Amino acid sequence: MKEIARRARSEQRIIGFVPTMGALHAGHLSLVAYAMQNCDPVFTSIFVNPKQFGPQEDFAKYPRTTEPDAAKFGAARVAALFLPEVAEMYPPGFSTSVNVEGLSDRLEGRTRPGHFRGVTTVVLKLFEIVQPHFAYFGRKDAQQARLIAIMARDLNLDTQIVLGSIVREEDGLAMSSRNAYLRPEERKAAAVLHRALEAARDALRAGERDALQLQQLLRRIIESEPLARIDYAEIVDEQSFEPVVRVARPCYALLAVYLGQTRLIDNMLIAPATDDAHELTFDL
Amino acid sequence: MKEIARRARSEQRIIGFVPTMGALHAGHLSLVAYAMQNCDPVFTSIFVNPKQFGPQEDFAKYPRTTEPDAAKFGAARVAALFLPEVAEMYPPGFSTSVNVEGLSDRLEGRTRPGHFRGVTTVVLKLFEIVQPHFAYFGRKDAQQARLIAIMARDLNLDTQIVLGSIVREEDGLAMSSRNAYLRPEERKAAAVLHRALEAARDALRAGERDALQLQQLLRRIIESEPLARIDYAEIVDEQSFEPVVRVARPCYALLAVYLGQTRLIDNMLIAPATDDAHELTFDL
Repeated sequence: MKEIARRARSEQRIIGFVPTMGALHAGHLSLVAYAMQNCDPVFTSIFVNPKQFGPQEDFAKYPRTTEPDAAKFGAARVAALFLPEVAEMYPPGFSTSVNVEGLSDRLEGRTRPGHFRGVTTVVLKLFEIVQPHFAYFGRKDAQQARLIAIMARDLNLDTQIVLGSIVREEDGLAMSSRNAYLRPEERKAAAVLHRALEAARDALRAGERDALQLQQLLRRIIESEPLARIDYAEIVDEQSFEPVVRVARPCYALLAVYLGQTRLIDNMLIAPATDDAHELTFDL
Repeated sequence: MKEIARRARSEQRIIGFVPTMGALHAGHLSLVAYAMQNCDPVFTSIFVNPKQFGPQEDFAKYPRTTEPDAAKFGAARVAALFLPEVAEMYPPGFSTSVNVEGLSDRLEGRTRPGHFRGVTTVVLKLFEIVQPHFAYFGRKDAQQARLIAIMARDLNLDTQIVLGSIVREEDGLAMSSRNAYLRPEERKAAAVLHRALEAARDALRAGERDALQLQQLLRRIIESEPLARIDYAEIVDEQSFEPVVRVARPCYALLAVYLGQTRLIDNMLIAPATDDAHELTFDL
């Protein structure tokens, strides 16, 4: 992979990169399509990264569907699919970690200690191997994408982080490889996340600027669904991910909600008096 | 600097890099000469990195001699000297750290908590900017060089770490920018570090394999010098930097010794039945 990337770099080509954990859905493929518009070649990877799963989490049962995934990437005409083994990424003696301090420990990081350290470490490794000019991440994992953008800035990487929109099912459920875990009744109930986010957006449009009110609205709607249990429901600044009191600038409404054993996240970018179309890359 | 490095990379040239904190001495210049043998262009940097100094350490008083340093690099015909400002390397909001776990907390890291985290973070940043194929570090800072080599391996960097020999004064004192802190009587006493290392090497050659005996020999000789106070004196494996019981493979005799307020480090690679000439790069 390094050799292929090096050759593309030396030929002055623009390398796009879509790293994934496989179990591809339309969200991943929209990132590939996005990358194809701006880059040639587009490289992809599938690596279920053990370092970003906690000991009680779903590393072992995370869906692995490499053959159909490879076929999908092939149909999308990606130039290469990087498929490293765990022992290749983390050989004996591996001991380096990359951490973005502060934000890594909040929100997702509070529920999943060490998760983001695992993410930033593996993403930096992948960037060093693939040497992308542009790397594409889904906005569903908004905090992850923000942390990776901070890392790229802080470490002077030659890689620009680009965010793709959330792709949703008919009923609004955000595409996620973990949706496969949902039992039929949970799957149906899971649409409540998007309904809550839409309600917050609509309330903002109707003039509500008080973040606590919007947060309570999110909670009220989710709690109306008996199968759903809130982990967090927050209104945070889009750049700093700090809680806000009033929504005066673009903010994320962020949700983490359990449906049975399955933990789903979702979010919506909300802003006073604008539409939701927004800058394509993080403004650092 | 990024633009210059990018151009050199795109022209398929071999980039050598000698990062320094300035206050150049013959040790630094020997690294430049070494780099010039194998690379073209050779880039250098001077950056007194605040993140690798503890709050009680000598960041403020560390010698800064940029003009004569630049002249020396110029005379050595380096292609570029990178001279970043602190605010440029660590702008507001900077929050990423790179750490090699385990070894960073032992030996130098025990006396200087956070030191190596600061080193690996800044070195990775410099590598991302300068994009070297080969980066040169002095063997006096053996643990530092080892940690950087581990980082480069773990993060799949496209940079090979090369070690240059320790350059010494007439009386054996290892060249160091901090030697300038020594008062005349301390400067004279400081030769005891090298005498102790030589004695350990000679004892090994004479058949002593017991690491504790060698360590006690180091201590005895340094303690014979009234102005010297030992921080540590250890015999460690050359690869793992773990303490050894018997010297059966190449080991470092490592010293950290105070002369008055000034803390000096030195070391010698010792091995049973070989000379001290040794591989040029860390064998990972």
